[in-house]
Amino acid sequence: IHPVYAAMGSTVFERMSALARERGAINLGQGFPEGPAPAPLIEAASRALREKSNQYPPSGGLPELRAALSRFYRERQGLDLSAAEVIVTSGATEAIAAAVLALVHPGDEVILFQPAYDAYAPLVRRAGGVPVSVTLQPPHFRYPMEAVRAAITPRTRVLFLNDPLNPSGTVASPQELAAIARLCIAHDLVAICDEVWEGVRFDGAPHRSLMGVEGMAGRTVKIGSAGKIFGLTGWKVGWLAAHGDLAVALGRVHQFLTFTTAVPLQWAVAEGLGMDAVLRELTTGWAASRARLRSGLEEAGFVVLPNAATWFLCADLSASGVPLADAEFSERALLEAGVATLPVSALYEGEGAPTHIVRLCFTKPDTVLDAAMERLARWR
Amino acid sequence: IHPVYAAMGSTVFERMSALARERGAINLGQGFPEGPAPAPLIEAASRALREKSNQYPPSGGLPELRAALSRFYRERQGLDLSAAEVIVTSGATEAIAAAVLALVHPGDEVILFQPAYDAYAPLVRRAGGVPVSVTLQPPHFRYPMEAVRAAITPRTRVLFLNDPLNPSGTVASPQELAAIARLCIAHDLVAICDEVWEGVRFDGAPHRSLMGVEGMAGRTVKIGSAGKIFGLTGWKVGWLAAHGDLAVALGRVHQFLTFTTAVPLQWAVAEGLGMDAVLRELTTGWAASRARLRSGLEEAGFVVLPNAATWFLCADLSASGVPLADAEFSERALLEAGVATLPVSALYEGEGAPTHIVRLCFTKPDTVLDAAMERLARWR
Ligand SMILES: CSCCC(=O)C(=O)O
Ligand SMILES: CSCCC(=O)C(=O)O
Repeated sequence: IHPVYAAMGSTVFERMSALARERGAINLGQGFPEGPAPAPLIEAASRALREKSNQYPPSGGLPELRAALSRFYRERQGLDLSAAEVIVTSGATEAIAAAVLALVHPGDEVILFQPAYDAYAPLVRRAGGVPVSVTLQPPHFRYPMEAVRAAITPRTRVLFLNDPLNPSGTVASPQELAAIARLCIAHDLVAICDEVWEGVRFDGAPHRSLMGVEGMAGRTVKIGSAGKIFGLTGWKVGWLAAHGDLAVALGRVHQFLTFTTAVPLQWAVAEGLGMDAVLRELTTGWAASRARLRSGLEEAGFVVLPNAATWFLCADLSASGVPLADAEFSERALLEAGVATLPVSALYEGEGAPTHIVRLCFTKPDTVLDAAMERLARWR
Repeated sequence: IHPVYAAMGSTVFERMSALARERGAINLGQGFPEGPAPAPLIEAASRALREKSNQYPPSGGLPELRAALSRFYRERQGLDLSAAEVIVTSGATEAIAAAVLALVHPGDEVILFQPAYDAYAPLVRRAGGVPVSVTLQPPHFRYPMEAVRAAITPRTRVLFLNDPLNPSGTVASPQELAAIARLCIAHDLVAICDEVWEGVRFDGAPHRSLMGVEGMAGRTVKIGSAGKIFGLTGWKVGWLAAHGDLAVALGRVHQFLTFTTAVPLQWAVAEGLGMDAVLRELTTGWAASRARLRSGLEEAGFVVLPNAATWFLCADLSASGVPLADAEFSERALLEAGVATLPVSALYEGEGAPTHIVRLCFTKPDTVLDAAMERLARWR
């Protein structure tokens, strides 16, 4: 067994969800919506199952979906990506794996901002690269540009950006994006930009992609997720976008990672991207749940961090007067209160992890959120 | 761009299908069924979309599907695999990628039998390994055990077996399986056994897995595909099976390759594996199509090789008096006759490829097969 995997445990998301299932706890740990799925998408997928071919689409994805994504990004983010420059993947995780396998050579250094999705570092290591972490800190999770500059060496080839950022729900400012772009250009880095939360923003601002910053178009791999946009995490439809030859190379990696992605769901996502009312309704519903969780947490005496995006709110345990580290809080809240949460320190490696922040997922029915808040309030 | 991908083209399957679409040719190149999909599976998937959660199942797959696979292999192949020892992947291609990333270290040599699925060698190279090819020859595609022995060195770690073998549709004999097992055991190799065609056999024999051969249980990764079993190649539901710690390690790779697989389709496959009548009907239908293509080819003057499995028949061009190499035949048959086929030499690398065999996929409606045969007969 390759050493990257030999000593590895399950992802923290999987562990918390398995424990929650086992204990019958309310699961605000792993990020996924509960409640009815958007009916027009379910209908579109059922229709595709019955009326369309259930055989291999082209490896890069259904032409209709690639065209819909090209349009979606042009209209919503002002990006100029042709349909051929979008490659449909089996979820954003495959997109991340493909980008790393394409771009990271043995010995390459890769800048990772922490907190980070726990797939990034192992994939970089399996590709032969060396993750170099730059640590973001609560409550604001700003990008420490001096530290980024200091982390770059002549071996640095790739920089990972997750914007909006999970778990914090913060968004890089235009100034931060510009500063990151300047460094990428100056040091000839490719940015792998995990923008799966681009469609889940509550600040009214349109998503600004690093890809759209001057000079970045040719050196950005943009990653997106239908699971996040439509709240259908079990569909596993994601994509990569990049310009020109970079897109071609990413398509080559993808053809030998999964070849292609479940075709009935590709049809449904292609239709869904044009359903403005559905998209608006989803965001409105999530915004209401976000407000409900925030006030519930605050009533229960928790200090909640500022947030502009994602399905998550973060509570500051030390500001809330809870004398527990996040990992201990999460474990005990699950076992004693019956509520699964995510300890944010699990998304950091090495030194410098804050240990006083827990993440809670709010895309749940009101009754579930209310019950979770009642349990936590009673328990704390 | 990593050198493995920099100079790479599209897979031959993709190229032939794209050309066939472009030219409006009948596509007997890439392997997939045409015609109605099995209705009970379509209904099961539609029902799951409406009635089950559309959110993340566990990373290793829906427990119901893992249990169904454990049962399926116990009943049909006498294998003792627990549900936890089966990991659901986004198609067999992901399963292959996961196995390679888990097992192949930089510098490891990997025995590959040619002809081979064109994903194997690039994945081995991207993992840092060195593919060492052993070449099988028409018409019988037997395993040249002396050549295998000669190819093994102290650096050999892994052996790939694809049984039944695509493109030939041949099946390893019990003696061949035993000889391969003896070598794996003597040289402490792990076998990655791509058995996606295990459910598509026409010789009446049950599939015998290398995993079931004495001494192989702990050193075999078995790979399967719902796309092949049910003729639903666009669903992209596959799996890995292995014993004990090996299964755990493969699950770790999988969690960071795609995390999990489209959940409504997992539900449908779990149901489908128990539908004996559906499975029988599929095989009966494919057997009839196989007979029809064979007699059509023979009437058109082609010599057809023996075949026991898969969706493919191979024609021997030189024995048929066709004075063209396979690549030229396939290109001209597509452009001039409007029939896409697969040149078998495309599934070999390096020296020793036969250039007189073309593969044709027979899982098509009678009208399609008849039209293709008529076009080929008229043209040749
Ligand atoms: C692939 S499991 C991770 C899901 C997720 O995005 C989260 O919970 O943060
Ligand atoms: C993933 S495309 C290859 C499909 C197939 O199994 C074949 O045509 O041989």
